[in-house]
Amino acid sequence: MMGMAKVVVALGGNALQEAGTPPTAEAQLEVIKKTCEYLADINARGYEMAVVHGNGPQVGRIVLGQEIAAKQDSNLPAMPFDVCGAMSQGYIGYQIQQCLRDALRNRNRNIPVVTLLTQVVVGEDDPAFKNPTKPIGPFYSEDEAKKIAEEKGYTMKEDAGRGWRRVVASPTPKRITEIDSVKRLWDSTIVITAGGGGIPVIENMDGSLTGVAAVIDKDLAAERLAEDMETDVLLILTEVDKVAINWGKPNQKALEHITVAEAIQYMEEGHFAPGSMYPKVFAAVKFARRFPGKKAIITSLYKAVDALEGKEGTVITMA
Amino acid sequence: MMGMAKVVVALGGNALQEAGTPPTAEAQLEVIKKTCEYLADINARGYEMAVVHGNGPQVGRIVLGQEIAAKQDSNLPAMPFDVCGAMSQGYIGYQIQQCLRDALRNRNRNIPVVTLLTQVVVGEDDPAFKNPTKPIGPFYSEDEAKKIAEEKGYTMKEDAGRGWRRVVASPTPKRITEIDSVKRLWDSTIVITAGGGGIPVIENMDGSLTGVAAVIDKDLAAERLAEDMETDVLLILTEVDKVAINWGKPNQKALEHITVAEAIQYMEEGHFAPGSMYPKVFAAVKFARRFPGKKAIITSLYKAVDALEGKEGTVITMA
Repeated sequence: MMGMAKVVVALGGNALQEAGTPPTAEAQLEVIKKTCEYLADINARGYEMAVVHGNGPQVGRIVLGQEIAAKQDSNLPAMPFDVCGAMSQGYIGYQIQQCLRDALRNRNRNIPVVTLLTQVVVGEDDPAFKNPTKPIGPFYSEDEAKKIAEEKGYTMKEDAGRGWRRVVASPTPKRITEIDSVKRLWDSTIVITAGGGGIPVIENMDGSLTGVAAVIDKDLAAERLAEDMETDVLLILTEVDKVAINWGKPNQKALEHITVAEAIQYMEEGHFAPGSMYPKVFAAVKFARRFPGKKAIITSLYKAVDALEGKEGTVITMA
Repeated sequence: MMGMAKVVVALGGNALQEAGTPPTAEAQLEVIKKTCEYLADINARGYEMAVVHGNGPQVGRIVLGQEIAAKQDSNLPAMPFDVCGAMSQGYIGYQIQQCLRDALRNRNRNIPVVTLLTQVVVGEDDPAFKNPTKPIGPFYSEDEAKKIAEEKGYTMKEDAGRGWRRVVASPTPKRITEIDSVKRLWDSTIVITAGGGGIPVIENMDGSLTGVAAVIDKDLAAERLAEDMETDVLLILTEVDKVAINWGKPNQKALEHITVAEAIQYMEEGHFAPGSMYPKVFAAVKFARRFPGKKAIITSLYKAVDALEGKEGTVITMA
């Protein structure tokens, strides 16, 4: 596949689960089968690719299930959050790897697909650790929450009137620990990596790694990967075909091509929802600014091929 | 690392968990840290290596925890057994990958370590599927067991007076789906692969893969890998330094070097316990027979380096 255009694809939650379907692995497999048809089309159009996926609902269910099981059976202690993230990479990566291989074979492309378990280094001094914002796991009463905070040292916050939850930080991805393996496989293989944004680890003074409870934004992890691989495109897939300003208002306007400067202005004006479109535009801006001449695209899974050919989606470039 | 002797290392359960320690991920990490010191020593002595690990207790707890959680919360449905296997590869692979990297760095060996999620193809017509023998998950009453058998089509068996359990087949590993990626990484990287014997899949008529509920023997999966990589050594690590005949009897005798013919004779004479030493000797025989001139070794983690240098363990060769 030497010489083909290179793209890192970041899959949104809707590429793994459909609203209204049961939260079973079987239902997820059906959605992923469809998703992989679109991914295989991208590859068949001549793009080398790596795939990054989210894991929010999946890791949430793993954590919640373990908390419930631990209460019933002392032989089933709940695992630390980094381990739950690793398990979610296993769960989701396996399904994508299996389905993408099949979708490629149906297009006469016998290309290996493999999931690499991926640790991503974050800074212990990342300011995000001072203000954890990502809720994970079950809801608790205020009393329970305070007890847990005392016992386990977790940060607990009230979540929009629905109860108290553990919150963890969402620090910036600094380094993909397994990047060497991604590089060695890239030319021959479609690599699924940095799932869920990667298993968050900090680097200790002696250079060893320790898992931490944190959620790394998967679009930012995909951007990190795209920078490391110097890909031609960072392709962020979500539910909408194009990014819009004045979202939901009469003067809503879909964006086709914006510069980094325009994107920053829109971000500052508050056009993009935090935790939703904002981090996607932020990741796109980071990539476009790092590589003038290359482009980031935000679009839907269904329009991905058209977007790569310049006919769809929102393109963000430096100039 | 070109030109170094190549070895596939199969890790037994005691390399991941110590008897008497709590079944937590934190306790497992401490055991794996120690295990990785021994693995790093093997590499430092000049052996290229890949690592295969078991997953029995871990996947058992994942299955059991999910069954408990599913009863309490309909939004937490239990996952199919193949997915649980993939999750266990995530859990265990992550910890080995993290600790082995650190142990190597402490020896000034900056060698990448990565876990590949691995599917292993088994035959749909494998006779093992006609007589499932591997118990997995929780115990049930006879009534519950019959209901589950009817509802889900599971095979349920009474387990040594302790209750009824689901049993699955233990079919022979035919092909490691991700072997191309192992080959591409081998020269530069320590690959953790076929964890728990691999995620069992069958190949459908159209060549697509489907996960199945089965347990692949991890020593046989390691043997499959060693055959594919044509390694110099298949190193099977377990709790004892040497294989013995007449185990536990006054005439117990540790074996230092046996031929394939001798090993088969001992197997036929019933010297090795099914589900314990038997499958290890079986895997060793398979490898030694496939490659006359190469050797399989069965020993403990602690004697592994000495065994590779011919000073310890039980060596099995063709002649």
